[in-house]
Amino acid sequence: MKVSVPLAKSYRLLNHGPVTLVSAADEQEQNVMAAAWAMALDFEPAKVAVVLDKQTHTRQLIEKTGEFVLNIPSKQLAKLTLQVGSTSGKEINKWTSFDIQKEAETDSRIPLLKDCAAWLHCRVISEPHNQQTYDLFIGEVIAAWADDLAFENGHWDFKDESLKTLHYVAGGHFFVTGEAIEVSSGLDSPD
Amino acid sequence: MKVSVPLAKSYRLLNHGPVTLVSAADEQEQNVMAAAWAMALDFEPAKVAVVLDKQTHTRQLIEKTGEFVLNIPSKQLAKLTLQVGSTSGKEINKWTSFDIQKEAETDSRIPLLKDCAAWLHCRVISEPHNQQTYDLFIGEVIAAWADDLAFENGHWDFKDESLKTLHYVAGGHFFVTGEAIEVSSGLDSPD
Repeated sequence: MKVSVPLAKSYRLLNHGPVTLVSAADEQEQNVMAAAWAMALDFEPAKVAVVLDKQTHTRQLIEKTGEFVLNIPSKQLAKLTLQVGSTSGKEINKWTSFDIQKEAETDSRIPLLKDCAAWLHCRVISEPHNQQTYDLFIGEVIAAWADDLAFENGHWDFKDESLKTLHYVAGGHFFVTGEAIEVSSGLDSPD
Repeated sequence: MKVSVPLAKSYRLLNHGPVTLVSAADEQEQNVMAAAWAMALDFEPAKVAVVLDKQTHTRQLIEKTGEFVLNIPSKQLAKLTLQVGSTSGKEINKWTSFDIQKEAETDSRIPLLKDCAAWLHCRVISEPHNQQTYDLFIGEVIAAWADDLAFENGHWDFKDESLKTLHYVAGGHFFVTGEAIEVSSGLDSPD
C-alpha cells in the first residue's frame, strides 16, 4: 500500500543509488523517461539532483511546468525501465506502447507508476546554468510516498521481495538491491 | 589487480549507485570521508557530481588542491566507511586511527584505498555557486581504475564476491550489490 514518507526521511529513498523513472505532465500530455543519474542533495528541505538530457521530451515538460516525479521502480519494472529509456515520447506514446500502469497521479497530473517501491514529487529549483551546461536539474521534494511492503518507518524493509529496487549498469544490465548488512563503527560517539 | 578503466567507460563505476569514499591530499596531509551522494554526470569527457559538506576537512583539501579521488569501497570496508563517515580529520588522524591501508597514490599524492572495487581520480570544475549553495562539486574524471576481479572489459563482474560494492542507507545500514539481471526491451532499435 502506498503511504506517505516524511520529507526529512525522503533522502533514504535515493540514498542506496537506485535507477529512477522520471515522469512529468502538462495539461495536454504525460511522459516518462529513465534516469540512472539521480541522487539526494539535501536533508531538509529535502532536495534531489537529476540529469535530464536536452533531447528528451520529459525534460521539455519539466521545463514548462517546473515539476517532476522520481519513481523508484521495483525489479518487476526492469524491462519497462529499459523500454522507456530507449525510446522517445516525441515519437511514440509510451503509456499505450508499453501498457504502463499508473498507481495514482499527483495534484499536478503527474503520474506515479504502478509496481514502484517509492515516489518523490519534486519542484524544480531553477538553475539555468546547471541545466544548460550539465543537463543537471535540482528539485525540492514536496511529497514522497513508498509502498509499505518495501519501506516502512523510515527504513527499507523488503517484506515483498518483488519490490526490491534496481541499480542500472548499461544496456539491459541491472543489479537488484542485495543483502542488507549492519555494522558498528566501534566508536563512542553516536553515529 | 588494479587495472586502468577507459575514461569513456568510467561512468559505469558509479552508475549502479555505490557509496563512495572521497580522498584528497595536499603537500602536508591526506584525508578521506564518506559520500553516498555521488553520481555520474557525463560520458565524455567523463564527469561526476558529489556532495561535500562545508564542515569536512576533506572538502578543505579539495578546495585547496582542486582534486579528489572517489574510491568505491568493497563490502570488506563497510565498517571503515561508517568510521570515516562519522569522524572528522580535523580531530583525528583517520589513517592511523582506523589503520587504513593504501593501494597506491595518484601523481597528486591522493591515496587510493586498499580493498576498493574501483577508483576515479577527478579534477574539480570550479562552480562556486553550486559549491556554496548546495555543497555540490563537479569533477572531470582524469583517470580511473578497477580491480579486475570486480570489473573487467567495461563491465562489473564480481569474480571475487568480497569485492561487491556497498549501497548506503543510513546509520550503520548498507545493502550489498545484489543479483545481476539482464533484460531485453523487445524493440527493433538497438539499445
